[in-house]
Amino acid sequence: MAYRITITSNGQTISAEKKDILADRLQQAGVPLNLYCNRRGLCGKCFVEIVSGPRPDAGEKEKSWLGQKGLSAAHRLACQYEVEGDLVINVPISSLKPDVPILPSIPRSGVVPDPAVKKYYLELPQPEISSPGSSFEGILSGLGEKSLKVSMGALSGLGRILKDSGRKVTVTVHEESEVIAVEPGNTLGQNFGLAVDVGTTTLVMELVDVETGRTLDLEAAFNSQSKRGADVISRLTYALAETKKAAELRGLVLETLNQMARRLFVRNKISPGSVYEVVLSGNTVMGHLLLGIPVDSLATAPYQAVFSRLPSLGAQEVGLAIHPQGKAYLAPNIQSFVGGDISSGILAVQLARRMGHWLYIDLGTNGEIVLKAGEKLIATSTAAGPAFEGMNISCGMPALPGAIYKAEDTGSIETSTIGNSPAQGVCGTGLIDLIAAFLARGEVAPGGAIRNPEKRLPVAPGIVLTQDDVRQMQLACAAIKSGLRLMLKSNGLSIEDLEGIFIAGAFGSYLNVRNSMALGLLPRMDEKRVVFVGNASLAGSRLLLVAQEARREVESLVQRVRYMSLASERQFQDFYIRALEFASWP
Amino acid sequence: MAYRITITSNGQTISAEKKDILADRLQQAGVPLNLYCNRRGLCGKCFVEIVSGPRPDAGEKEKSWLGQKGLSAAHRLACQYEVEGDLVINVPISSLKPDVPILPSIPRSGVVPDPAVKKYYLELPQPEISSPGSSFEGILSGLGEKSLKVSMGALSGLGRILKDSGRKVTVTVHEESEVIAVEPGNTLGQNFGLAVDVGTTTLVMELVDVETGRTLDLEAAFNSQSKRGADVISRLTYALAETKKAAELRGLVLETLNQMARRLFVRNKISPGSVYEVVLSGNTVMGHLLLGIPVDSLATAPYQAVFSRLPSLGAQEVGLAIHPQGKAYLAPNIQSFVGGDISSGILAVQLARRMGHWLYIDLGTNGEIVLKAGEKLIATSTAAGPAFEGMNISCGMPALPGAIYKAEDTGSIETSTIGNSPAQGVCGTGLIDLIAAFLARGEVAPGGAIRNPEKRLPVAPGIVLTQDDVRQMQLACAAIKSGLRLMLKSNGLSIEDLEGIFIAGAFGSYLNVRNSMALGLLPRMDEKRVVFVGNASLAGSRLLLVAQEARREVESLVQRVRYMSLASERQFQDFYIRALEFASWP
Repeated sequence: MAYRITITSNGQTISAEKKDILADRLQQAGVPLNLYCNRRGLCGKCFVEIVSGPRPDAGEKEKSWLGQKGLSAAHRLACQYEVEGDLVINVPISSLKPDVPILPSIPRSGVVPDPAVKKYYLELPQPEISSPGSSFEGILSGLGEKSLKVSMGALSGLGRILKDSGRKVTVTVHEESEVIAVEPGNTLGQNFGLAVDVGTTTLVMELVDVETGRTLDLEAAFNSQSKRGADVISRLTYALAETKKAAELRGLVLETLNQMARRLFVRNKISPGSVYEVVLSGNTVMGHLLLGIPVDSLATAPYQAVFSRLPSLGAQEVGLAIHPQGKAYLAPNIQSFVGGDISSGILAVQLARRMGHWLYIDLGTNGEIVLKAGEKLIATSTAAGPAFEGMNISCGMPALPGAIYKAEDTGSIETSTIGNSPAQGVCGTGLIDLIAAFLARGEVAPGGAIRNPEKRLPVAPGIVLTQDDVRQMQLACAAIKSGLRLMLKSNGLSIEDLEGIFIAGAFGSYLNVRNSMALGLLPRMDEKRVVFVGNASLAGSRLLLVAQEARREVESLVQRVRYMSLASERQFQDFYIRALEFASWP
Repeated sequence: MAYRITITSNGQTISAEKKDILADRLQQAGVPLNLYCNRRGLCGKCFVEIVSGPRPDAGEKEKSWLGQKGLSAAHRLACQYEVEGDLVINVPISSLKPDVPILPSIPRSGVVPDPAVKKYYLELPQPEISSPGSSFEGILSGLGEKSLKVSMGALSGLGRILKDSGRKVTVTVHEESEVIAVEPGNTLGQNFGLAVDVGTTTLVMELVDVETGRTLDLEAAFNSQSKRGADVISRLTYALAETKKAAELRGLVLETLNQMARRLFVRNKISPGSVYEVVLSGNTVMGHLLLGIPVDSLATAPYQAVFSRLPSLGAQEVGLAIHPQGKAYLAPNIQSFVGGDISSGILAVQLARRMGHWLYIDLGTNGEIVLKAGEKLIATSTAAGPAFEGMNISCGMPALPGAIYKAEDTGSIETSTIGNSPAQGVCGTGLIDLIAAFLARGEVAPGGAIRNPEKRLPVAPGIVLTQDDVRQMQLACAAIKSGLRLMLKSNGLSIEDLEGIFIAGAFGSYLNVRNSMALGLLPRMDEKRVVFVGNASLAGSRLLLVAQEARREVESLVQRVRYMSLASERQFQDFYIRALEFASWP
């Protein structure tokens, strides 16, 4: 016999059979109930108000939650409530899943927090002397579980913690399969994680409340490996020389990451022991170096990575100073030269879920391009060289205070520097603007030659562009342009077919679209269809930290992406040479 | 449409539908096919001869196995063979599951090896330059798996091993869920484990070929913790004094275990790197000390253990020097004072699977008793004191060369020593024989008093029994006897209802049943129903090492066993005092 449930909060009326669990019916009806503890009555997050209908007595625990949350005595946990008659209910907003934006710049990017690390507060009964069982079994039964993994570290303090806390403890569970911490008292709300973008040049780290999905603070630092080589290839070469050198690179990046974490913890008055997980997105070489996995196979044909998808590792084993039983998760690699930074980036922009055809471009020393062509996902990488990062340019510098990042021809060449500091050099975006301006003036030929006999273009006091600088940018743009054209062509697409292009990378934020189009770095198209998404790799890390569903998605995503090796495409050399000319396209 | 399959090797005829997998039909029909790799065509163990019927072409790998195994070209892998017509087949014995006895002393104790650690030999294809994937993904696909866990340690050598071996590798997988090793070349057959009985007094370790289930060699040593206390209670007290002292005890037992393992490896010319798993059975205190888990909660009421069932741990984390990614598994505890030595013991004798009512007794410093009463399993422990182990006896010693282990009254008291060495003392079994003889002569009263005025009984030159020695044995026997009687009574059983009694423990092997019955240690019953099973805990460890099914069984077993606390039974004091008299029962 069917009962009728009227939901006053949204006006819906649904039906239910006798003994149905209210939470299940609400969820089936599309009500986004917060079922954090997976219906085990452990988290107290799915209270609904029973306005009319059977209202069985609330248990001790339910009553204590009602008090804490200031809810009326008419509220019951939907996950424990069995339907026994017609109902009128009201679902408070506080019982719905929170929704947190991951990348504010693009639409449809919300995520419901469902972190891999969850906390449960338990008040355990005293063991009976005739059959005391074990402390850990007591915790399992408090969690309503039959068997979970546990490490020796998590067990070692257990006896004392139970005793000292009067058996009131907070249990931290990883991936619903392993108890990683038992803490005295109620430490709900103290559940933090770190989302990291492990860039070749820059490391960016966010401190995130994984329960709410909110970023609390951010740190950025140079990757101190840079002193052993500016780009991935020189890092690789350095690591190959000796095992010791690979270990040195590992130590350098770990030291910086741990310093960044420490600063975040101190500034936010958070104990490292309340931080249970780190998610890291980086290119394949960065990932291998970080884990101390030899990079030999990445240096010679067929350029094979040792791993792509990895299960969660112990943070301690990786070398990250968070909770001793904490975990580390690496965004999976797509291919040897399309790494976890790209998989997390396309995850963050939800590339695979969009309608139509899209491009995702990460502009850096390696330019990575992912094309979504209908149902297909194709990735490639192209060696752009370090020009976009201001490297190997006579007056080049990274995008730091004092860098000319913007230039405009208003009769004379007007430049802007980051932080309005005196100009110390030119970063990648400045270089693009400058070359576009000189090209428009005719001082640089479409073929790249500087037309004046000195072959030098003065920019600001002490700063000039040389012929070589222009050549560097020419090579970088050609790499991207030829990659884009070849990818589109071999998938039977033209620019007009694209819904849009995502530009990821710190470089993107200051990029002048019109000038990029003028140089041919980006195709000519409606500017509104070019979406700058900033550090999408970092956003992907945050998403992976906060939502388990995202991990499953990215792991299946990397298996779907087909890799296209530009080098093995016959037409590539032809496309590349033709792309060397500064010219808009198509 | 059904086909007919005639099995010439056993005369059976079975039916099959089109496209049925031959292995599945054979298994359903009760043919114990060896399906080691779980039907993945990876191990080459389930060949059958297709005498007549469709014989599809054999693959490269199948052909190479046929050659290696000296089988005719008519053989095919049953797990890969799809039925497409009537068949006449012959199943060679080499394709059946081997059957290995675990405890030769008792019937129905065979086990089919299905170890937690399995090896697979793979010849991986060269990666394609256009889409090389990752080395680890290559291994997964070679195993026919989508996703397995892997540690950083197992990954770190992977690139080089694949390269140097020409991509011919042996992959070691733990519990079908984690890759723990990748070795160059074919190392099948090199898959060893250690089965250990972690006794309070003695450590016994077997080196086992986990694929065949055969024990290759054995080592025994004293538990070097003994210098910090002879029994569990004094060990517990020592550990409680300071964290440092618990760590010292941990170090002592680990050092001895690793020495024993090293001797086994050297003697058998086996590399520690070919040993992937250790299974340890010990009492609860031994288990906690071994893992460095504080024993505080075991020392005060309600005497709660920190853990009972544990998942596999890293051997390195535990401190055992086998393969660096090797595993350690501890037999689960039943209750605080009925530990993993008992759970593995009752597993080895298959107590729970037997018909009718049975007793299992482990005679040691703690006497543990498990009663199988129909479907019920009830366990208890009773503090017998160290008399059975020859401790706290004026002329006592453990069962070592020179110990009087047997005595008989042939007019005079005739004694035998272990190894026929000159008598240096008396061990537990010798003590029982001596007291039984003096009791029969009337020199010891049933109440335990020595009747001569000196209160001393000469045994051999320099060896006498004192009044105190007799009292120690009296207390020990009373503890067991009263425990047995109370257990039987509260379950409504009498001795006549029992099918038999298993006596476990090294002590058991020399025990004179008649004398034990005369003192009342064992109840009077048909001697043939008293089964000495020796070190059943060690046998259980071996079983757990060799058969995954045994782990599932023991883990569910410990949840089924109800603990009976003698101390909290009102009648216990009465039973105990009455049991102090040396007298046969019932």
